[in-house]
Amino acid sequence: MNIVVYLVNDNVAEFNFGFGSAMRLVELLPDASVSVCSDENSFVNELQNADVAVVWTFRQEWFTISPRLKVLATPAAGKDYFHVNPPDGVQLVYGTFHGAIMAETAAGMIIGMSRRLLQTAQLMTSQGKTWPRDAVSGKARRVRGSRVTILGFGHIGSEIGRILKPFGCRITGIRRSLAAAAPDWFGPEDRVISIADLDEALACTDHLVCVLPGGEQTTGLIGKKQISMLPDGAFIYNLGRGNAIDECALADGLSSGHIAGAALDVFAVEPLPDDSPLRTAPNTVLYPHSSAFSPDYMDLFAEELAGKLKKAAAG
Amino acid sequence: MNIVVYLVNDNVAEFNFGFGSAMRLVELLPDASVSVCSDENSFVNELQNADVAVVWTFRQEWFTISPRLKVLATPAAGKDYFHVNPPDGVQLVYGTFHGAIMAETAAGMIIGMSRRLLQTAQLMTSQGKTWPRDAVSGKARRVRGSRVTILGFGHIGSEIGRILKPFGCRITGIRRSLAAAAPDWFGPEDRVISIADLDEALACTDHLVCVLPGGEQTTGLIGKKQISMLPDGAFIYNLGRGNAIDECALADGLSSGHIAGAALDVFAVEPLPDDSPLRTAPNTVLYPHSSAFSPDYMDLFAEELAGKLKKAAAG
Repeated sequence: MNIVVYLVNDNVAEFNFGFGSAMRLVELLPDASVSVCSDENSFVNELQNADVAVVWTFRQEWFTISPRLKVLATPAAGKDYFHVNPPDGVQLVYGTFHGAIMAETAAGMIIGMSRRLLQTAQLMTSQGKTWPRDAVSGKARRVRGSRVTILGFGHIGSEIGRILKPFGCRITGIRRSLAAAAPDWFGPEDRVISIADLDEALACTDHLVCVLPGGEQTTGLIGKKQISMLPDGAFIYNLGRGNAIDECALADGLSSGHIAGAALDVFAVEPLPDDSPLRTAPNTVLYPHSSAFSPDYMDLFAEELAGKLKKAAAG
Repeated sequence: MNIVVYLVNDNVAEFNFGFGSAMRLVELLPDASVSVCSDENSFVNELQNADVAVVWTFRQEWFTISPRLKVLATPAAGKDYFHVNPPDGVQLVYGTFHGAIMAETAAGMIIGMSRRLLQTAQLMTSQGKTWPRDAVSGKARRVRGSRVTILGFGHIGSEIGRILKPFGCRITGIRRSLAAAAPDWFGPEDRVISIADLDEALACTDHLVCVLPGGEQTTGLIGKKQISMLPDGAFIYNLGRGNAIDECALADGLSSGHIAGAALDVFAVEPLPDDSPLRTAPNTVLYPHSSAFSPDYMDLFAEELAGKLKKAAAG
C-alpha cells in the first residue's frame, strides 16, 4: 500500500505532517510505504502510484491522474472545508479524532467562564486594577450541578460530555438522529434528544455548547428566538462552525446581560471582521478557530488513519 | 444549642451568612437555635448565651463574656487569618469545605493555561488583533498525560488531584507527613511523597500547583533554586498562600521563558502592589484571592458545620 501525504500549512505548525507522525504511521502499518510531500508538485508526481492520498485540499482533476487511488483521507472534521466528488471506488475519509483535544478546550472554556477566570484574566495586568474582587464576587459560579446542553452530539460533542461528567454536570446531547445508543458514561440525569426538542432544552440550560457542522442545515439554528429562550445568566460556547449562531443576536444578548458570557472559537466569517460586534461584547472571549491546536494533532490523526486503513485492508 | 453567627464582609458578597444558609443550618440541626448578627454590637450581646460562635474574627477578650462557649467556628481555611488562643473547653473549628470549589478553579487554571485560553483571552477584543493564530499555534498543550505536582496535599490539594484524574493527569501529592492513606482515586501512576523529596518531584513536573498554608514553615519554599529545577516549559499555580513562592524569582523565570506560564490567586502582600513584577510578567494571569468565591460557599460551610456539631453533640 502506497500512502502519499501532502499536509502542509504555513500558518499553523500543528497542521503539518511531520517526521514523527510519518514514523508512527509506518510503525502501525509495517507493510505500507509512506511518502510525505512538502509541496504540491511532488505530491502530484506521487499520485500515479498512490493507493491512499492524505491531504488538506484536493483538486477534482487530480482523480484522473490517480489510477490506483482507493482512499482520499483528510484530518479535517468538517465536510464544509473539503469539496470533492470522488469517483466510484474512491472512499473519502474525514478525521474524527478531534474530540479528545477539543473536549479539553471546551472544558477549559466552561470552567473558566463559570469561575470567572477567562473574563478577568487580564484585569490585574494590562488594565492595572489593583485588586478587582468586585469583578469576581457575586459573579463566579460553580460548575458542579450545572446543566450543559451540547448541540451536535457526535464524536466531539460526546467527548465534551464525557469530560464534564466528573464535574457533576447534567448533560443533554442534541442530535439529528436518535438512532445511536446512549454513551456508556451517561447517568440517570443525562439524556440525548432530537433537534426537534431544542426549544424545550434551551429553557433549562446553563451552558449551551455548539459543536455543529457547517452547511445550510445548521445556519442560524441559534437565532434571536433561541437565545431569548435560554434562562437569564446562561453561557454560550461555539467550537463547531460559525454559521450556527446569529452573531448579532448573540452580541445583543451579551450586551443586555441576558447571556452571562460567551466563549467563541468559530465565526460566520473567518478571520472575524474587525468591526464585529462580538469584539466589544461584554463577558466575551474570542479565539481564532484554534480549539483543536495541539502538539499531538497529527499523531492522533495518524493513529486513527492507520486503524481505518487496517480495517479497510482486512475487510 | 445556641448558635450565634457573625459573618459579615462588605467586599465579598459570598462571605456573608445569609438567610438561606441559616435555614439550611436550622434544617440540619432542628434542635438548635440560630441567631445571625449583622453587626458587632448585637453579636457581642448574644455571646453570653452562645454555645457556638461562628465568625470571621474574634477578639481574645470576648472569651470572658462567653461563659457557655464550647465551639468557636470559622469558614476560614487558613489558621494564619484567625489569631486567638481559646481557653480550655473551647474547641476551634476551621472550614475544610473549600476543596470542592477551589478544585474547579484549579482545573480551570490548568486546562486554561494548557489550551492557551487564559493567556490569549483578550487578544481578539481589547488589543484588536484580527486573527491571532500565532498566539496559539505551537504553544497550546494537551492536559492529558501531563504531570501535576500538588504541593500541599490536604483537603484542597486532594480535591484538585481528584478532579484532574479524568483528564489523564499523573498526580504527585506532596505533604509534610505521609501518615494518611492514599486517596481512593489514585492510579498506579499517582503517588504521595514527603516534602523532603520536593526537588526530585520538581524535575518531572509539568504543572506545579501550590496550595500550602501560610506561616514560617512554608515561606519561600518555592524559591529561585526550586524554580530552576522545574523542566523548561513548566507552569506554576498558587491558590494557597502567597508566602510560599519567591515572587521575584518567579517573575524572572517567566520573563526568561523557562516557566511557560503562571496563574496566581494569592500573593506575599495582598492587595498585590501595583509595582509587582508579576503584573507585567509574560504568560501570567493574576486573580484577587478569589479562588473560593462561589454562591454556595456559605451553604457548603453550613452543611459542614452542622455535621461537625452533630458529631460533637453525639460524642
